[in-house]
Amino acid sequence: MSVQFERVAIIGIGLIGSSLAHVMRREKIAGHIAGFAKSIETRKAAVQLGLVDSMHETAASAVRNADLVIMCVPVGACGEIAREIGAALKPGAILTDVGSVKAAVVRDVLPHVPQGVHFIPGHPIAGTEQSGPASGFADLFVKRWCILTPLPDSNASAVTRLENFWHSCGSEVELMTPEHHDLVLAITSHLPHLIAYNTVATAADLEEVTDSEVIKYSAGGFRDFTRIAASDPTMWRDVFLNNREAVLEMLGRFSEDLSALQRAIRWGDGETLFNLFTRAREVRRNIIAAGQETAAPDFGRDPKHR
Amino acid sequence: MSVQFERVAIIGIGLIGSSLAHVMRREKIAGHIAGFAKSIETRKAAVQLGLVDSMHETAASAVRNADLVIMCVPVGACGEIAREIGAALKPGAILTDVGSVKAAVVRDVLPHVPQGVHFIPGHPIAGTEQSGPASGFADLFVKRWCILTPLPDSNASAVTRLENFWHSCGSEVELMTPEHHDLVLAITSHLPHLIAYNTVATAADLEEVTDSEVIKYSAGGFRDFTRIAASDPTMWRDVFLNNREAVLEMLGRFSEDLSALQRAIRWGDGETLFNLFTRAREVRRNIIAAGQETAAPDFGRDPKHR
Repeated sequence: MSVQFERVAIIGIGLIGSSLAHVMRREKIAGHIAGFAKSIETRKAAVQLGLVDSMHETAASAVRNADLVIMCVPVGACGEIAREIGAALKPGAILTDVGSVKAAVVRDVLPHVPQGVHFIPGHPIAGTEQSGPASGFADLFVKRWCILTPLPDSNASAVTRLENFWHSCGSEVELMTPEHHDLVLAITSHLPHLIAYNTVATAADLEEVTDSEVIKYSAGGFRDFTRIAASDPTMWRDVFLNNREAVLEMLGRFSEDLSALQRAIRWGDGETLFNLFTRAREVRRNIIAAGQETAAPDFGRDPKHR
Repeated sequence: MSVQFERVAIIGIGLIGSSLAHVMRREKIAGHIAGFAKSIETRKAAVQLGLVDSMHETAASAVRNADLVIMCVPVGACGEIAREIGAALKPGAILTDVGSVKAAVVRDVLPHVPQGVHFIPGHPIAGTEQSGPASGFADLFVKRWCILTPLPDSNASAVTRLENFWHSCGSEVELMTPEHHDLVLAITSHLPHLIAYNTVATAADLEEVTDSEVIKYSAGGFRDFTRIAASDPTMWRDVFLNNREAVLEMLGRFSEDLSALQRAIRWGDGETLFNLFTRAREVRRNIIAAGQETAAPDFGRDPKHR
């Protein structure tokens, strides 16, 4: 792989930022990786882990002369970062992000982007429940989708360069509008996380069942909810604050459907339950067929199957 | 390991039944394994897989002379099986089951259990989303909890023999009442499954987001819900029909909590969201500390982490 960008700046070095550093090193995508993180601890850790070629004490210093700038910070922090780096961005540079919400990022970032800089929002659909600079790994993006949401007047060759960048990281790339992205992610990611968080909270508040019982018998399904619910709290707070309309819309539908299910249970309507459960199983099979999951069982966490 | 039961009958040979056959073979727990399954296909498959020493065309024939009889059928089928085998059970035999609901099983089974047979309901908290006779494996129960719910007049030495059986399968054993079991499982297993099924159904019904988009971008969290929602539909229908009160109770609390969360999103109350998400992360850490999960990330399904 030949160098695609002479100088890349990573702003924010958590799970995504550090994973990008790993894959850029392995694939020799960047001539030089400049880094910035808000906390001193993260900056130190990133240097010790060899993630960057130069570490900076301000975001503006990190982006100077960079050909590609990737904001890997919680969605709510993008506007402030853009304000700080705007004037330091090199003409012709590509500015992108990895946030889970796109319309709000466009709203917050665009006003700070000078003429001649190509702002192309992005979102790699990949992650683990780990966070921090030590949690990254080069294969995080392999076979995962990355959604780019170019703006109506985005420069076509800049979009192509960014698409190629993500291809080099192992991802497949899809283009859509920021608004459609936010709707798709509300159902495939934001609602599941909200529901998982809520289930864990409900369980923690019970009087008749102790916390230690919940933990002991979590292998029955609860455990898989806690995995989702272990993701970074700041990141997720920002997601819900910034994709409010779409999340409330999905939540409303979810609650309607749940009421129907509740009614079926109350009235002993086994047929409705059976039909719904059978349909859900089909969706699962389609996900496996689409290569977004393996068929290996996961509940038992049997070493043989891992 | 020395033979604990001269003759064991497995009634129903799906994931749990076949896994029990595997572990009994490996640990030499049974002198002879007799099997019965309702469908001819399952009976043939079980014989071909070498799961049993003798396969029977009726449940009554399978349990004759057995020292231990394990009903591994959906909860709703236990009463009918008990009616069929009751008269054929050997005096002194232990009769148990593996169902996810206990009070309803006691209600349905107990009337058919003759004097001198020890009926001790059980529930191994282990599983995968796979089903059928080919899905079993010997390690399914390793380090998982098995709950036994002896009745007030259960024979103490029979309970001990059944505890030892599950220990030999690799499980830890806990005793509690059927009613408490049903409450604990309602929150740790039944509610999570219901919620997962419901989320998948909500997603499948959207107009603005296509099914193929839901599948493509499922790595954002949705995928983990579909795994839970892929479990056997008949088994789960029976669970909800037979643990109605406890499930409706947990569902009521879940909906209340979800309304509060919805309100926090609507009003932009980031602090409430952040605090709740942080608490949920703690529960996750406790589950890992309790050995019921590994800390390895699972979202990315990176081969390195499997």
